[in-house]
Amino acid sequence: MTANATTAEIRQARFDHGMDVLTRIDGESGQKVIDSLADISPELGHQVVAWAFGDIYDRPGLAPRDRQLVTLGMLTALGGCEPQLDVHINAALNVGLTPEEITEALLHSAVYCGMPRALNATFVAKKVFGERGLLPVTSR
Amino acid sequence: MTANATTAEIRQARFDHGMDVLTRIDGESGQKVIDSLADISPELGHQVVAWAFGDIYDRPGLAPRDRQLVTLGMLTALGGCEPQLDVHINAALNVGLTPEEITEALLHSAVYCGMPRALNATFVAKKVFGERGLLPVTSR
Amino acid sequence: MTANATTAEIRQARFDHGMDVLTRIDGESGQKVIDSLADISPELGHQVVAWAFGDIYDRPGLAPRDRQLVTLGMLTALGGCEPQLDVHINAALNVGLTPEEITEALLHSAVYCGMPRALNATFVAKKVFGERGLLPVTSR
Amino acid sequence: MTANATTAEIRQARFDHGMDVLTRIDGESGQKVIDSLADISPELGHQVVAWAFGDIYDRPGLAPRDRQLVTLGMLTALGGCEPQLDVHINAALNVGLTPEEITEALLHSAVYCGMPRALNATFVAKKVFGERGLLPVTSR
Amino acid sequence: MTANATTAEIRQARFDHGMDVLTRIDGESGQKVIDSLADISPELGHQVVAWAFGDIYDRPGLAPRDRQLVTLGMLTALGGCEPQLDVHINAALNVGLTPEEITEALLHSAVYCGMPRALNATFVAKKVFGERGLLPVTSR
Amino acid sequence: MTANATTAEIRQARFDHGMDVLTRIDGESGQKVIDSLADISPELGHQVVAWAFGDIYDRPGLAPRDRQLVTLGMLTALGGCEPQLDVHINAALNVGLTPEEITEALLHSAVYCGMPRALNATFVAKKVFGERGLLPVTSR
Repeated sequence: MTANATTAEIRQARFDHGMDVLTRIDGESGQKVIDSLADISPELGHQVVAWAFGDIYDRPGLAPRDRQLVTLGMLTALGGCEPQLDVHINAALNVGLTPEEITEALLHSAVYCGMPRALNATFVAKKVFGERGLLPVTSR
Repeated sequence: MTANATTAEIRQARFDHGMDVLTRIDGESGQKVIDSLADISPELGHQVVAWAFGDIYDRPGLAPRDRQLVTLGMLTALGGCEPQLDVHINAALNVGLTPEEITEALLHSAVYCGMPRALNATFVAKKVFGERGLLPVTSR
Repeated sequence: MTANATTAEIRQARFDHGMDVLTRIDGESGQKVIDSLADISPELGHQVVAWAFGDIYDRPGLAPRDRQLVTLGMLTALGGCEPQLDVHINAALNVGLTPEEITEALLHSAVYCGMPRALNATFVAKKVFGERGLLPVTSR
Repeated sequence: MTANATTAEIRQARFDHGMDVLTRIDGESGQKVIDSLADISPELGHQVVAWAFGDIYDRPGLAPRDRQLVTLGMLTALGGCEPQLDVHINAALNVGLTPEEITEALLHSAVYCGMPRALNATFVAKKVFGERGLLPVTSR
Repeated sequence: MTANATTAEIRQARFDHGMDVLTRIDGESGQKVIDSLADISPELGHQVVAWAFGDIYDRPGLAPRDRQLVTLGMLTALGGCEPQLDVHINAALNVGLTPEEITEALLHSAVYCGMPRALNATFVAKKVFGERGLLPVTSR
Repeated sequence: MTANATTAEIRQARFDHGMDVLTRIDGESGQKVIDSLADISPELGHQVVAWAFGDIYDRPGLAPRDRQLVTLGMLTALGGCEPQLDVHINAALNVGLTPEEITEALLHSAVYCGMPRALNATFVAKKVFGERGLLPVTSR
């Protein structure tokens, strides 16, 4: 922030910063979510970008791959978050998790969330990996 | 209830009363849910009408628009209730909540339920508002 | 297990045993889930078979129909488990629960999980019963 | 319902009938819940009795022990329902489920809800069984 | 924001603004939550204040009492949020909801979340109302 | 497994192996959970040890610290798992996550699960860190 920043300028700067972080992690799929909010709740789009990515994701205390591990755990446990799992399994690959680590994390989730949540998340991974030419995954 | 009410008559009267309340709030979409239960669980349909609408919704202690605000919060938080959100976002409009209030309530839900639940509910609102010619919504 | 069992042999024996139990309860639909995991997480498929069915389902302390009653309650309460409800409503029929008992269990779930979960589960039952020629169900 | 039933009389009759069912299943612990609601939400107490027990529990389509199996599954899956699990593990014993069947049902829940939910529910069973002199339970 | 605002100044200004909103709604109980985070996660405290209250709660699109209705619905549905229900039932009273409206909203929640969630939330209301001398509540 | 392994010997070997893994990760707190199950559901204790730890935790495809990141995400999202969070925040420290990484992971959870779940988990971390002399944690 430079001199004479107005509330509107601060708001725009927070958004721009968040969009940089979002693009780095999610690539195009994050942008698509924001675009799809434009006519129904642009403010929700703004908060996803400026707050979730600009304020939280960008913090240095946890590596990007570690954030995705936590995120995969949460989205699997919550249930009903298949669209978000799609985005974040892509993000997990983008920030350096391997397909094997991702499927292993989802297998691990069976212990804490039970088989249905683990299965639903794994089938989203199957879709994403298929789209990126990463099938088959061979666990040991 | 008039004289000589039998159990069957009381049951029918409770249903008729509930259907009046349901129609007032949900319009046709409530009736469709009841119809779709006819061959699998007519009793569940009866209980939705006679109990949920006839006994609970009709109580005077909370205004219809206030009931829909609570309901939108619950359905968003529960997750996996997209069909019910569709019915109740329509209901919310029917009882006087504005599109702006509804999207604001769903934005507010991000604080308590997290972004995925807020996003999923907002995309249901986008579908409903689109069907009713209410897009775009302009939040401040 | 006979003499000279290696780790790999024990693993195979646990899988084979689990597959017997799975087939007895779920018929073909269980096998389909395992097959669909082959290229994404064969280990998750192994654990569903060897652990969930071989170790837990096969235990004598609770009758197969009773296990399905508990399972229907859990899957309804969890939400977002429609694919698993499909498999287990089929399983419930396979192990001797009647359509009337299943819809009654799902009606009962409204008391503890609320109407949306009860409705979502009941519509899965409608699909399954329809596929098996069991509609209409007539509750009293 | 006899002749000249007023709305108030019907309401009272529904409550009295529900209280009979509640007492049969839950014994004193159900009554305690109703009493504890008297100064905060007597209507919620009325609905638990008149609707949940009078209308739903009393239906003949599912045996009382079967209803408790479904209920144990739901309460375990929901999480955060330890007070209700206490009431319903007692109820399960009252309607004829054995301690072994109850712990087996909670073990079974690990497959669908994961270990934390199974553990939390099992520790409630430990408390209830301890109060009723039913420990230790010996699973095979 | 005035001229020459640095990132640190903007951060402080966002916090100060959020604390004004928080105090207006939650009174002292909000401050207590922030204080209790000081030695474990001051950043979480900052985000509750600066983001949840400063950015979201302060928006004009939904009246404070309406935000509490949505919030009560969400916290009841989520389960396991008794500490937050305590804060927000207090907040609901602070912004003008009556005890009767609050208990009616929690009764209404039984339709969507089931009896256990409705009961757990109602018992938190009983505690809060008791502390504020608002018992008994008389529903019609 | 060596020659002539019987079913009972295989069962014991799986348990012994799991107990090694459990002790390495959870130290004494894991053992306490198993002990507390002895008189109510020894089989649940067996499955936690032999399956969750022996079969799943021991797999090489995901580092122990990564498993705890996923686990913290799941337990936070599930809600009502405070006892398990206590065990696993201890485990996270045992396998090399720093207090700063743990609190950052829980801050991150606010984005996906909302503030109440993030707060509840953070207060468990405060308790555990306090017991281990790790307070205050200073986030940047």
